[in-house]
Amino acid sequence: MDTTKRSPGAIAPNRLEAFSDGVFAIAATLLIIEIKVPLVEANNSLGRALVDLWPSYVAYALGFATIGVMWINHHLLIGLMQRIDRRLLYLNLALLGVVAFIPFPTAVLAEYLTEDSADNLKAAAIFYGFVMVLLSVMFTSLWSHLRRTPDLSKDGQASNAIATRALKFSGIGLALYLLAIGVAFVSPPLAVGMFGALVILFAAGRLVPQSLAL
Amino acid sequence: MDTTKRSPGAIAPNRLEAFSDGVFAIAATLLIIEIKVPLVEANNSLGRALVDLWPSYVAYALGFATIGVMWINHHLLIGLMQRIDRRLLYLNLALLGVVAFIPFPTAVLAEYLTEDSADNLKAAAIFYGFVMVLLSVMFTSLWSHLRRTPDLSKDGQASNAIATRALKFSGIGLALYLLAIGVAFVSPPLAVGMFGALVILFAAGRLVPQSLAL
Amino acid sequence: MDTTKRSPGAIAPNRLEAFSDGVFAIAATLLIIEIKVPLVEANNSLGRALVDLWPSYVAYALGFATIGVMWINHHLLIGLMQRIDRRLLYLNLALLGVVAFIPFPTAVLAEYLTEDSADNLKAAAIFYGFVMVLLSVMFTSLWSHLRRTPDLSKDGQASNAIATRALKFSGIGLALYLLAIGVAFVSPPLAVGMFGALVILFAAGRLVPQSLAL
Amino acid sequence: MDTTKRSPGAIAPNRLEAFSDGVFAIAATLLIIEIKVPLVEANNSLGRALVDLWPSYVAYALGFATIGVMWINHHLLIGLMQRIDRRLLYLNLALLGVVAFIPFPTAVLAEYLTEDSADNLKAAAIFYGFVMVLLSVMFTSLWSHLRRTPDLSKDGQASNAIATRALKFSGIGLALYLLAIGVAFVSPPLAVGMFGALVILFAAGRLVPQSLAL
Repeated sequence: MDTTKRSPGAIAPNRLEAFSDGVFAIAATLLIIEIKVPLVEANNSLGRALVDLWPSYVAYALGFATIGVMWINHHLLIGLMQRIDRRLLYLNLALLGVVAFIPFPTAVLAEYLTEDSADNLKAAAIFYGFVMVLLSVMFTSLWSHLRRTPDLSKDGQASNAIATRALKFSGIGLALYLLAIGVAFVSPPLAVGMFGALVILFAAGRLVPQSLAL
Repeated sequence: MDTTKRSPGAIAPNRLEAFSDGVFAIAATLLIIEIKVPLVEANNSLGRALVDLWPSYVAYALGFATIGVMWINHHLLIGLMQRIDRRLLYLNLALLGVVAFIPFPTAVLAEYLTEDSADNLKAAAIFYGFVMVLLSVMFTSLWSHLRRTPDLSKDGQASNAIATRALKFSGIGLALYLLAIGVAFVSPPLAVGMFGALVILFAAGRLVPQSLAL
Repeated sequence: MDTTKRSPGAIAPNRLEAFSDGVFAIAATLLIIEIKVPLVEANNSLGRALVDLWPSYVAYALGFATIGVMWINHHLLIGLMQRIDRRLLYLNLALLGVVAFIPFPTAVLAEYLTEDSADNLKAAAIFYGFVMVLLSVMFTSLWSHLRRTPDLSKDGQASNAIATRALKFSGIGLALYLLAIGVAFVSPPLAVGMFGALVILFAAGRLVPQSLAL
Repeated sequence: MDTTKRSPGAIAPNRLEAFSDGVFAIAATLLIIEIKVPLVEANNSLGRALVDLWPSYVAYALGFATIGVMWINHHLLIGLMQRIDRRLLYLNLALLGVVAFIPFPTAVLAEYLTEDSADNLKAAAIFYGFVMVLLSVMFTSLWSHLRRTPDLSKDGQASNAIATRALKFSGIGLALYLLAIGVAFVSPPLAVGMFGALVILFAAGRLVPQSLAL
């Protein structure tokens, strides 16, 4: 639609958004193929097997909610931009690379959530937390780049205020995920609980700028 | 395209729709990877094996039709909106989480459709029905929220009438899926038949508002 | 973008196209996950194993080209429409259900292309041909519906001429795929060759209306 | 949105772009499903197993970066066009067929990156390089076609200058990937290093036209 208006070679924010939306949507939807159909033989055991898959359902909900909330944040970011520069383009690609990676640590968490071995759950939780930290670092870098480069955004003043706030929030998110990793060394189940609580906090708007005036 | 017109941070209905469309399309298309290539050794047995996969084809058709009809309903909903609020955003994410989950209960149903064990088919049917109930609850919540919040919709009067009717229909859908779960306790195959009949009813427009004037 | 202009509940052709494009793109891209990484032990055997996978590469190329050509045809169809009615909506959903199914018969064909058993290759070729026949039937129904319902298309005269021609071509395609199934009973490899030749014929524009003036 | 403006049957550049974006996004996101959850039994071994998967992470990063950079290049190409002809349509389909294939050689590379057998890594590296050569050939053909057919592009003069430069760069890319294949015969690990370096070179803008003025 604005294909005809943009200067040759420049990537319009809405094309970057469409491509990013695709990666977010696919990553969220791919979470389901990590849950395998249970194969049971004896009579009456499928019900039991489906109930026993609850860690997979929890991990699915966690992964889907995480990607969904990140999508909303990403949307807020791109919505402020009038222009994309090369650095933002590659920072965004790196962010998408982390988003598309999420199904893997999520599946690892699901596999080891109910295991007797506390050490394996610890490893799964640390791994998941590490990917969340990477995600937070990418978001922090993106917001920070937007703030340092005012001519990328639509109306400098308002955008700058939002970017400042978003930067603060993504910094807090980063700190809390680092804390959750620390907690995982002491109590892996508590760390998993923190991952869930963090998504709820983000979703409840406590960690999302209020300017996302929905 | 309207990136430039929307207020900073607000998610335009058409972006929400594009993201949702992506999840619907991917969930529908992922259904196929649950059907595995049959590996046969003896001569002349592949034809037999492909025919014996009929429960997978039935489940595929059921899943695809269900997601397709839900996509049409979702489209009707978003088409009425002029603005997205935070609550609708998260209700929609929850709905998408259920839609993207559909390939799993569908694959479970395919696996146990022809099994001798009536108890396992019962469990599979109840599980499938339960996910459909969740889906109906999400749709009911979304329509209900739209009806309670008139300033979200484009033209209050007409939209309200449609929302009222859609709400009634999604309530009926919810009741019928609950009924199908009850039926599954008595006759699992009959419940599976009801799942198919419900999709056909929805598709035939008996359960879809006529205002979807196609 | 035209969200604001369309009447409540109506699905604009470009939304139907976007959803359909998603299914085509995902189905085409999912073809690759049917090719599994060969696991070899001995030294120097991976090269051999990768070469021995040639039937998978052939099937991948066949499947991708088929879906790609169908995408172009679908585009031509939707490009003529100014309005979507309920029948077209469901015919289109059924078509997409067949398109999203293509990775499965393609993988079956790849698995049995080099098998000694002629009977198994025969079954695989008939199965593939059967899905192509379904695809042709769906396209024929869509073009036929467009021709019988002139007020769906943008400019009656020109659209009608294109629809008439496209209908003829999809009928020819249907007949040729039926012929290929017949050939499969006599010579399965020849039938597979016909599947490839048909895609090339379509792509070369011999079976696509010239009005697709590219 | 411009559905109403385009001549019947013609595919607008922005539709081709949307479809292509879909294939790029899905291919990049599918890379993750090649990494399987490690199943360990003993206590404390999951951490080790997750670390030992580093070749998969490296291959994932390589594949994602490659597809991402190709997406940017593809975008530059389509952004110059005002019209699509039949040849470009099919060249683009062939390019997408190669892009969607990338997850497979990437997974092969991941599987054999740490194997003792130098011969198997050699085969994996040559295979990966071969697919990259195919990709470069497709890009070279597309740029070459654009350059030979000035009426496809928006403003002949500027577009032609960009196409000339892009053609040179894709030729250099082709030569370097051929060189990497040669290197793989001598030192497979060095060839893998070259694959990574090439992506970084492309991303750093050394091999991308500066006119991609981001």
